[in-house]
Amino acid sequence: MSRWEPDARGRLERAALELYSERGFEQTTAAQIAERAGLSERTFFRHYADKREVLFGGAQLLEGAFVETLAAVPAAVGPMDAMASTLEALSDFFADRHEFARRRQAVIAANVELQERELIKLATLTAALSTTLRGRGVGEAAASLVAEVGVAVFKVGFERWLRAEGGALSSFLREALLELRVVVGPPPR
Amino acid sequence: MSRWEPDARGRLERAALELYSERGFEQTTAAQIAERAGLSERTFFRHYADKREVLFGGAQLLEGAFVETLAAVPAAVGPMDAMASTLEALSDFFADRHEFARRRQAVIAANVELQERELIKLATLTAALSTTLRGRGVGEAAASLVAEVGVAVFKVGFERWLRAEGGALSSFLREALLELRVVVGPPPR
Repeated sequence: MSRWEPDARGRLERAALELYSERGFEQTTAAQIAERAGLSERTFFRHYADKREVLFGGAQLLEGAFVETLAAVPAAVGPMDAMASTLEALSDFFADRHEFARRRQAVIAANVELQERELIKLATLTAALSTTLRGRGVGEAAASLVAEVGVAVFKVGFERWLRAEGGALSSFLREALLELRVVVGPPPR
Repeated sequence: MSRWEPDARGRLERAALELYSERGFEQTTAAQIAERAGLSERTFFRHYADKREVLFGGAQLLEGAFVETLAAVPAAVGPMDAMASTLEALSDFFADRHEFARRRQAVIAANVELQERELIKLATLTAALSTTLRGRGVGEAAASLVAEVGVAVFKVGFERWLRAEGGALSSFLREALLELRVVVGPPPR
């Protein structure tokens, strides 16, 4: 990251998304993305392994933030409430990214290979959350279940937020969590 | 499926699993699988597109059975209870397959490409269950959440069943579902 290329990652990310939206993911090359961003192809490859990865740099950051936030919830808080407050805190991450996230989703939805990569990233996130919960002393099955459920709530809330014209992500996540609790129902007495 | 090749799919499946366990997935070819099964390579490719697919023929059947069973639950039953009774009914599918399933899991766990394929199959299953629930009149968000939760319960219960020395899959699934209901907790009043 040279001083001559301020915010190279962000510029590449925005340029890639523009080109993928205009002409499609398959028809875009790394060289074209670099050119649109006013950077060299070499710089592209210094930041991203391939043209798929440009779309998933944020997912990496998100996973880190997710895990850190969950690990930092006070130990006395139970696993599901810890997950709920983590989802709440993470919403800020997306505060200014509604339009970006919406366009990114459209690019991914149009390409099977990208959909598969997205699935794999979500599975990696789920595994990381499960490990973090186990580190909080949660049993193995409960940790897996809460991690899966947390990611499911995130997906459902996130999709609704993308389709909506306004509103904070956090309120969509809260709504999805409430709906989950209603639909899952209590254990039999 | 000629009369001269009775149970060709099953024979190929068992031969593949033997070879994958003995020498590894990467080191096994379709020709070797066919030979071990006493069939021709042409027969192999009549049944499976590639050597990965031999491991996922059951997943296809499972998805069909899952969807049919869920669709057939009486309409008055709510989505989560419908999912619970579907999981219960599906356990029979695995009644004689404990050893097979355990070896299959070990092969998949040793290969990233197979793990990715497994994730994609599970995501396809989740989408199919969500569509089936919507067909039962369940709202979009609830359908997604119940489908995700059902697959999560299946994964957790299935893994425990694989590790256990005995017992029916259904009891592990019931236990995982109970644990889910306890850990998710009720909506706030």
